[in-house]
Amino acid sequence: MTSKLPNVGHSIFTTISQLANEYKAVNLSQGFPNFDVDPKLIELVSEALKKGHNQYAPMQGDFELRETIAQKIESLYGRAYHPVNEITLTAGATQAIFTAISAFIKSDDEVIIFKPAYDAYEPSVILNGGKIVPVQLKKDHSINWESFKAALSSKTKMVIINSPHNPSGAILSNADLLELEVILKDRSVIVLSDEVYEHLVFDGQRHESIARYPELAKRSLICASFGKTFHVTGWKLGYCVAPKELMQEFQKVHQFVVFAVNHPMQKAIANYLKNEEHYLQLNQFYQQKRDYFLEAIKSSRFTFSPASGTYFQLLQYDKITDEPDIEFATRLITDYKIASIPISVFNHNGIDHKQLRFCFAKTNQTLDKAAEILNAI
Amino acid sequence: MTSKLPNVGHSIFTTISQLANEYKAVNLSQGFPNFDVDPKLIELVSEALKKGHNQYAPMQGDFELRETIAQKIESLYGRAYHPVNEITLTAGATQAIFTAISAFIKSDDEVIIFKPAYDAYEPSVILNGGKIVPVQLKKDHSINWESFKAALSSKTKMVIINSPHNPSGAILSNADLLELEVILKDRSVIVLSDEVYEHLVFDGQRHESIARYPELAKRSLICASFGKTFHVTGWKLGYCVAPKELMQEFQKVHQFVVFAVNHPMQKAIANYLKNEEHYLQLNQFYQQKRDYFLEAIKSSRFTFSPASGTYFQLLQYDKITDEPDIEFATRLITDYKIASIPISVFNHNGIDHKQLRFCFAKTNQTLDKAAEILNAI
Ligand SMILES: CSCCC(=O)C(=O)O
Ligand SMILES: CSCCC(=O)C(=O)O
Repeated sequence: MTSKLPNVGHSIFTTISQLANEYKAVNLSQGFPNFDVDPKLIELVSEALKKGHNQYAPMQGDFELRETIAQKIESLYGRAYHPVNEITLTAGATQAIFTAISAFIKSDDEVIIFKPAYDAYEPSVILNGGKIVPVQLKKDHSINWESFKAALSSKTKMVIINSPHNPSGAILSNADLLELEVILKDRSVIVLSDEVYEHLVFDGQRHESIARYPELAKRSLICASFGKTFHVTGWKLGYCVAPKELMQEFQKVHQFVVFAVNHPMQKAIANYLKNEEHYLQLNQFYQQKRDYFLEAIKSSRFTFSPASGTYFQLLQYDKITDEPDIEFATRLITDYKIASIPISVFNHNGIDHKQLRFCFAKTNQTLDKAAEILNAI
Repeated sequence: MTSKLPNVGHSIFTTISQLANEYKAVNLSQGFPNFDVDPKLIELVSEALKKGHNQYAPMQGDFELRETIAQKIESLYGRAYHPVNEITLTAGATQAIFTAISAFIKSDDEVIIFKPAYDAYEPSVILNGGKIVPVQLKKDHSINWESFKAALSSKTKMVIINSPHNPSGAILSNADLLELEVILKDRSVIVLSDEVYEHLVFDGQRHESIARYPELAKRSLICASFGKTFHVTGWKLGYCVAPKELMQEFQKVHQFVVFAVNHPMQKAIANYLKNEEHYLQLNQFYQQKRDYFLEAIKSSRFTFSPASGTYFQLLQYDKITDEPDIEFATRLITDYKIASIPISVFNHNGIDHKQLRFCFAKTNQTLDKAAEILNAI
């Protein structure tokens, strides 16, 4: 049997998580918080279950939730998406990304992605017969726009951007978005903007949602995540917003990928999302986590520049060893009982800059334990 | 912009559900129950939420749930699937079906489906560049195996079977499965078996799961649904089982379609599923519903033969009018306030046998109301 994804095994997250569990390692690998969800949100789900919201939600998502999302986006980023036909709830941002790619990418279409890149983009493009055109980010993980221009061709159908950026924690600037707008001006290229960490931007910087840029927004699909925002990655709820011409194609595919998504949890989040305190304090909350973690490891032999966003921190280990990062990450689990994600798996041709990604969405106690181990390496 | 699904709009379920809501029609269209979920199951979800199962489940699904599913299948159908690498939890059976098709169908592959067919198969095949080869069922919705043989070619990659059958309520017999086994013997054709109504088979007949047929099972993926089985279609939880060589390809795609599925609900169902009373009494429960509904409309001008399985009943209306079924179904909503699903949308070339599908997974009160309307038409 020939595989449609011959070069794919279990994703790095599955592989590392299994190893981390096996060795009972302090787990800073896969991106999820290890602290409690707001009990109020849990209460809202229990209520929705009891009120009987247990049958199919509308294919596009619960209407009240779509309205609340539209209000949130308008108040934060100044763009009005129509709840009737420009918003769709998804089974997590992964499904939103997969569906957006599947709705538009056909045989021989080219998709530009910036490397290192989240590992779900490439197989989704390949499954649809498309071709990945990788553009390596600069050393500081900012975009080299000249390389981007050189990568564009008449076959370019889509570019995927991701800010705040996983795995690096870098963010795009206003200048970046303006540059993208100018470059794409006379081209019919779709932008897929992965903004799952939109509420995790630090040091007083602002999240440059593509929704803020009308000329870009009209050719863009934005994917977002309630799992990341509300500390419930296991609930698998996200959404996609896009102008109606794009959303129409998205929904054609969405309805056959999952039809609709979890109804009681949509009801709960519709209610919870109305209070903007539930997400506006996240920047500060996670900035403190980042600072706490970095302060605790500042005398270790790892080096770093603080993440601008996301809940991931890259640590450079070239002062410790010149082992390949996958090998070193594995050894950290088996010998030191701490789990992280090697970055080479997200790079073009597996380029290895000797960096590991640590998730700091953890209790201070877990971060203390992690720091103790890292300081002893 | 050229669409990847130029012939697809909103699915019939979305279109009819919206119209039914607008006209406040008695809704026997989309397949979902309108009675209460077992409060015990709801309690189990609330517990799982409070116990903190709120982060990513394993990509393949909660292990305890996979074990319980394996036990269930072995005790019902006598085949042992391995919980480690032959079972994957999905965001509803729709996602299982989509993923199974996407994992195997490439450009120019042919997929045989029996018409009328559930509407999600065809677009999923087309999105993957495959070609549908339709085989019309006989008048009584049994399979014409000669037509099936004639439809096979060297390009046939997959055949999709569905028993109990949506929309007709027909079921496959032991003779059917043996016939399929003989026909496929020397061919490398994959079978996708949609068994979402496995627990709804009436009149003392038994569900012929493909898992009962070792020679077929080794080339088959089975898709199943907790939404249908536990009256919670809005929770979007289903699963796929297959021998490990097939499951490996399935999971490669699954991890990039959704990564993993709702964790707290998996935990709840893992527990609930252990008590087999929770599904073994369904045959009887729904048979009573079917009989109640048919008794109530026996003096109407609709004609029928009782469904053998599923919670759908086809009603023939040619004694009432010769309107096309989509027109008649629409008029039943707008003028008579009762919603059903026209069958021509599931047929090859929209063949219209003047049949509508009614879902009888409803309270007796709703079935009474429906009967009152139908008797007056
Ligand atoms: C979908 S599993 C991976 C979670 C995640 O976003 C990450 O760790 O990068
Ligand atoms: C996924 S919406 C349709 C539900 C269903 O299975 C049906 O009504 O046939």
